[in-house]
Amino acid sequence: MVDSRFYKNNGPFSLAKVAEICGATLEDATKSDVEIKDLATLNSAEEGDICFFFDKKKKAKGAEIKATACVTTKELAEFVAPGVVKLIADNPHDGFVKLNYALYSEILPEPEIKSTAVIAVSAQIGEGCFIGDYVVIGENVKIGANCIIEPNVVIGHDCVIGDNCRIGAGANVMHCLMGNNCYIYGGARIGWDGFGFTTVAGVHKRIPQLGRVIIGNDVEIGANSCIDRGALDDTVIRDGCRIDDLVMLAHNNTLGRGCILVSQTGIAGSCEFGDYVVCGGQVGVADHLNIGSGVQIGAQSGIMRDIEPGSVVMGYPAVPIKDFMRQVSYIQKAVKK
Amino acid sequence: MVDSRFYKNNGPFSLAKVAEICGATLEDATKSDVEIKDLATLNSAEEGDICFFFDKKKKAKGAEIKATACVTTKELAEFVAPGVVKLIADNPHDGFVKLNYALYSEILPEPEIKSTAVIAVSAQIGEGCFIGDYVVIGENVKIGANCIIEPNVVIGHDCVIGDNCRIGAGANVMHCLMGNNCYIYGGARIGWDGFGFTTVAGVHKRIPQLGRVIIGNDVEIGANSCIDRGALDDTVIRDGCRIDDLVMLAHNNTLGRGCILVSQTGIAGSCEFGDYVVCGGQVGVADHLNIGSGVQIGAQSGIMRDIEPGSVVMGYPAVPIKDFMRQVSYIQKAVKK
Amino acid sequence: MVDSRFYKNNGPFSLAKVAEICGATLEDATKSDVEIKDLATLNSAEEGDICFFFDKKKKAKGAEIKATACVTTKELAEFVAPGVVKLIADNPHDGFVKLNYALYSEILPEPEIKSTAVIAVSAQIGEGCFIGDYVVIGENVKIGANCIIEPNVVIGHDCVIGDNCRIGAGANVMHCLMGNNCYIYGGARIGWDGFGFTTVAGVHKRIPQLGRVIIGNDVEIGANSCIDRGALDDTVIRDGCRIDDLVMLAHNNTLGRGCILVSQTGIAGSCEFGDYVVCGGQVGVADHLNIGSGVQIGAQSGIMRDIEPGSVVMGYPAVPIKDFMRQVSYIQKAVKK
Repeated sequence: MVDSRFYKNNGPFSLAKVAEICGATLEDATKSDVEIKDLATLNSAEEGDICFFFDKKKKAKGAEIKATACVTTKELAEFVAPGVVKLIADNPHDGFVKLNYALYSEILPEPEIKSTAVIAVSAQIGEGCFIGDYVVIGENVKIGANCIIEPNVVIGHDCVIGDNCRIGAGANVMHCLMGNNCYIYGGARIGWDGFGFTTVAGVHKRIPQLGRVIIGNDVEIGANSCIDRGALDDTVIRDGCRIDDLVMLAHNNTLGRGCILVSQTGIAGSCEFGDYVVCGGQVGVADHLNIGSGVQIGAQSGIMRDIEPGSVVMGYPAVPIKDFMRQVSYIQKAVKK
Repeated sequence: MVDSRFYKNNGPFSLAKVAEICGATLEDATKSDVEIKDLATLNSAEEGDICFFFDKKKKAKGAEIKATACVTTKELAEFVAPGVVKLIADNPHDGFVKLNYALYSEILPEPEIKSTAVIAVSAQIGEGCFIGDYVVIGENVKIGANCIIEPNVVIGHDCVIGDNCRIGAGANVMHCLMGNNCYIYGGARIGWDGFGFTTVAGVHKRIPQLGRVIIGNDVEIGANSCIDRGALDDTVIRDGCRIDDLVMLAHNNTLGRGCILVSQTGIAGSCEFGDYVVCGGQVGVADHLNIGSGVQIGAQSGIMRDIEPGSVVMGYPAVPIKDFMRQVSYIQKAVKK
Repeated sequence: MVDSRFYKNNGPFSLAKVAEICGATLEDATKSDVEIKDLATLNSAEEGDICFFFDKKKKAKGAEIKATACVTTKELAEFVAPGVVKLIADNPHDGFVKLNYALYSEILPEPEIKSTAVIAVSAQIGEGCFIGDYVVIGENVKIGANCIIEPNVVIGHDCVIGDNCRIGAGANVMHCLMGNNCYIYGGARIGWDGFGFTTVAGVHKRIPQLGRVIIGNDVEIGANSCIDRGALDDTVIRDGCRIDDLVMLAHNNTLGRGCILVSQTGIAGSCEFGDYVVCGGQVGVADHLNIGSGVQIGAQSGIMRDIEPGSVVMGYPAVPIKDFMRQVSYIQKAVKK
């Protein structure tokens, strides 16, 4: 049961309504008026709940369903426990996402500028924004419409933030131009100096980092992640990227559209990523590399060379995934001899 | 010498008192009234200090002791430098912890609600709490008795925090129900959205994360660590877990009782940990895995499969520790041929 | 073009002036009065810009230069595109750093103590400091002259901070004595408890961490990095160290002078580093190790043993870099058979 303290429940919904939302067909039309109150996982769903069943590898799970109703595929329907009302969909996962949006609403703050927010006179705040307590907004900052700036956020001078953005509690945004519909999680650090210095006679002398962080539209950056600004050119994150928590993106990297960086991944400086690159968790990428579009990198891999578009690689250092599997198998067999 | 600016020194203590606290026997009873002022390490202890000597592998270190007194075992006593007063204990380490607690007190703030804290009218704060400057506490939050909420903490609406908890400076707690005696370090991010989205026609569409973070009693979560809330079910951390700094615990993981996650470990989603699992530093665990009770995972290991209870594993991917050592040995020899 | 919203441009500069700043010789003296407005990379430099060309491996890039002027070496000068004014220097990179400092100025806040800062009466703040909004400074803190303490920073009681330090937004400093000219980035957590506990009858009992964090002069600590305080002795970072973002330095580590820890590196407790040790990104070092001066550790390496001064190592576990390369080659060949 989704905790209604944290999400508003817009239900109950009749199964007729659920079928419509999910793009599903109710197997037994006489059940149109049956109501469901909550969305739940296969394992936890109970009377009054609806669940989704679409994992072909776990057909046996169907018999254990205790939900009132279940959205499934034509193929899997026969495995659902008797007594559960079935809704048949081509794409149950898609239906799940749609029902999730329809049945629950996030509890978000109403537009308001808290009196404790310190906002430079030269800053511009768009309509419909929520600016939380103890937010500090520097000179000449421009924030678009309908943004949520959570408590204790610090936005440095001259930053530009588009419409419908959310900046999570305690995050910093500096030296940054950000598009629309971005979501920066709590504690993320955007725009700090890249790690640049020159060593003269044993003294590491800082090289001022003169670039910016340019973030496209519809980008998410996870909690406590760090995106350093460029040394001279910019650090660039293009539209639609998804960056998880505790990720390090160093100076002058460019991420193409829709890239996915899973948690604790670190990208050294000046890499050029194509579109839709996926880095599993804890991946490391050395500096000045080209990572082609569609590349998929397995978790904890270490990337020391350019990667051709579409490659799937893994290992330390990374090799094509098949070779990695062979390496693993080889060494495991060798020590068993 | 412990810096008395940071810890209050409750001494000096007579050796009779020290013996009692440590459960030790004073070898030379005529020294009962000798006083020690400070606790120090073997290497740094000087006149007026007491140290603890119990590492059997470093017997020779005993001769270098310059402390006034030393707690040691019957077995190691003969190696202690002459002139040092010896206290004999079955378990010196246990005595060390007890003396540490007795001789020093942390300097903690007195109960007070700072006037700059912004606390929703509907929130409930227990007796004896310290609520620091610039704390923001949302609607309907419940905080138990004797909690310390440090400056700049943000606690989201409807969270529940038990008694005797400490939330470190700048941390966030959201969508979370927490037990008693928990200690959340500075900058930790509890309850942000899990990394969930579905990709339709090249667009990553966010899946609202409807679950919570459920934290038991006596849990510690380190500085800047991130604990994401569940997608539908909850993320669960049971009693007594110890999570170090910069750890990532993704959505829908369940940690059993007393688990230990060393720094920079990352656990992908929907894993089920038994009790007393230990992950060394920088371990990565893939999603949807079962990690049995008592499993120990070596530092930097990559876990891609379920692990049986009680196993000790290491490697990338992880194998039983003996096999890992054999693999290392095999490859090192192979290249020396 | 460097965005003049974020950095003040002190130009334009004549090439005569540029030559003087960079320690370079203008090849064609008739160009002394030509002016440049901006510094740019080889790829992005345009009319009015100056760039630096000194990578011997990329001679062909010289022909593509579109800048007004270029600082290069005697050796590479012939590869520069015709029409570009050449300045010849022995060390163009050094010239780059000098011109960077001369042509641009960071926009820093003027000395001021914001009225919203909560500063204990017993704290001492030096002359020329900027103390930002919502900063919280505890009892007996001493801050030297000309420091910048950014918004939402929390400095715990009795900390000492030297002159010319900058503490980034949202960072914490506790149980810490810090020298001059240090730069702590946003969200860094200095001085939290080391990860210390003893397990008795299944209960992990916290061991109070009685040590401090001692930071020398001219140290940088990156965004969201964590430096734990010592258990009894101190955690020590000597002069000139550079610590990148999201680094974990556990209790009782000592870093020698000028050490460099690249992002996401983690050092377990009680290690002793010599001077000028370099850890690449995501390196892990086990506890109680001696890492000699001048050691270089490749990215993602796992260090399980002491390392002799001057060694260059890599791997998991780390071996001399040549052996690592052989291991990689061996296993790659083995699976191709």
